[in-house]
Amino acid sequence: MVSADVWIISIGDELLMGKIVNTNATWLSRRLTSLGFNVRRVVSVPDEENEIIEVIRDALKKAKVVICTGGLGPTLDDKTSKALAIALGREWVLNDDAFKDVSLKLKSKGMELTKERLKMAYLPMGAHPLPNPIGVAPGILLEVDDKVIIALPGVPTEMEAIFNEKVVEVLLKKFPLRYFKEKSLIIAKVPESITVPIVSRLMDKYKGAYIKSLVKGEKSGRPILEFYVACVGEEAGSVEDTLEELVKELREELIKLGGEEVA
Amino acid sequence: MVSADVWIISIGDELLMGKIVNTNATWLSRRLTSLGFNVRRVVSVPDEENEIIEVIRDALKKAKVVICTGGLGPTLDDKTSKALAIALGREWVLNDDAFKDVSLKLKSKGMELTKERLKMAYLPMGAHPLPNPIGVAPGILLEVDDKVIIALPGVPTEMEAIFNEKVVEVLLKKFPLRYFKEKSLIIAKVPESITVPIVSRLMDKYKGAYIKSLVKGEKSGRPILEFYVACVGEEAGSVEDTLEELVKELREELIKLGGEEVA
Repeated sequence: MVSADVWIISIGDELLMGKIVNTNATWLSRRLTSLGFNVRRVVSVPDEENEIIEVIRDALKKAKVVICTGGLGPTLDDKTSKALAIALGREWVLNDDAFKDVSLKLKSKGMELTKERLKMAYLPMGAHPLPNPIGVAPGILLEVDDKVIIALPGVPTEMEAIFNEKVVEVLLKKFPLRYFKEKSLIIAKVPESITVPIVSRLMDKYKGAYIKSLVKGEKSGRPILEFYVACVGEEAGSVEDTLEELVKELREELIKLGGEEVA
Repeated sequence: MVSADVWIISIGDELLMGKIVNTNATWLSRRLTSLGFNVRRVVSVPDEENEIIEVIRDALKKAKVVICTGGLGPTLDDKTSKALAIALGREWVLNDDAFKDVSLKLKSKGMELTKERLKMAYLPMGAHPLPNPIGVAPGILLEVDDKVIIALPGVPTEMEAIFNEKVVEVLLKKFPLRYFKEKSLIIAKVPESITVPIVSRLMDKYKGAYIKSLVKGEKSGRPILEFYVACVGEEAGSVEDTLEELVKELREELIKLGGEEVA
């Protein structure tokens, strides 16, 4: 069984104007990868309904899991929920559970339920709200055929809380956990290009393994390389064994080339 | 005249595994926005030829400027240059200028010209290399019809150096500079949702202006909001005037609602 493909859609003009760094996408990519998912695309898109709809439709053609962040608040440029409804050809309706949740949250914060805030309780028909333990706007969960579509707030603490408290559970119910193990080997004094044939041979030999070299710096004019190695599979023990064996062989080969391991 | 649309394509498995934060895209978005360009999409894509080709083709359907980062080095997973050639239906050929540049760079670093490193001198037919003042791999410049396609290395210092030294010049020759001015107003004690009608009215009134509110924190249980205001236009003076006038009116309206400006 292969890992389920994921697209992450980051919604917000501030990303495309370079006002903020997209750390949400990195955090989600990291968490999803460590649960054995395969993140295939991260797309940042402006706060425009048509653009958001287009990217959601592209994502649904390609991925089993689509996770959106941003655009769930009360302001005019919060357009994710309605765009999801349109992309899926569903009505955008006041959701009873979301309405109760949003009303209670606002009351506890001494805030009035205005028309603008009521928007946070509108979801695509058939969606479920994912209560937000920190802010007001709930996340959105939709299951369509064999796909899971999730929308989370753009505020990092809220996004992370809903992901950890609800999304992991939903995803692991639908897609069995795959074990993921990783390790980095730091090697000095070997130029990256002469390691190409070794990396290539080892990735062929160890199925389900992934090796990537990254230049980390220099030491007396010779490069310091990080070899990042990751394995994914159904069984924790065998994933760990494969990783250890692969790292051992890679280390030996690089030392033969004159490399020195850096602690 | 409207701003030219830009797509940024960030290439590298490490982005999709959450190993690194995509600061390159933020840096480019910021620089391009401040030159008056309109960044419409940032797409991160894995080191897979077919995926890169697909995204480049999507980008060329929508944007006047396409900027790729990453995947220009000597290793097996560096696939950007060849993918560009295929996406454009061009041959992938040894480029004379790139060959001279790469050979000289390697010589000066005391490195041999191996088959793997020679790859950095292959470009799509008709492309021009953009010399890299820091590393070895040159950037790539292609002009196709009315579009500009650029590929830059993924190492941030190299990417930034080539952008500042060459790309800005190329872009401003093809697309006249548009003036961009921005300002942030920090206002405490006004809930974001009640500011919606004001923001909406002012964006209608001041053409070419952009206003976005962002929750920055809390002060004695009331929110602190940032109102980010930006104006773009052909003439420096009038862009500045519009921005000043708009910020003044926005400040007055928010103070009427009980807001307090935070220095």
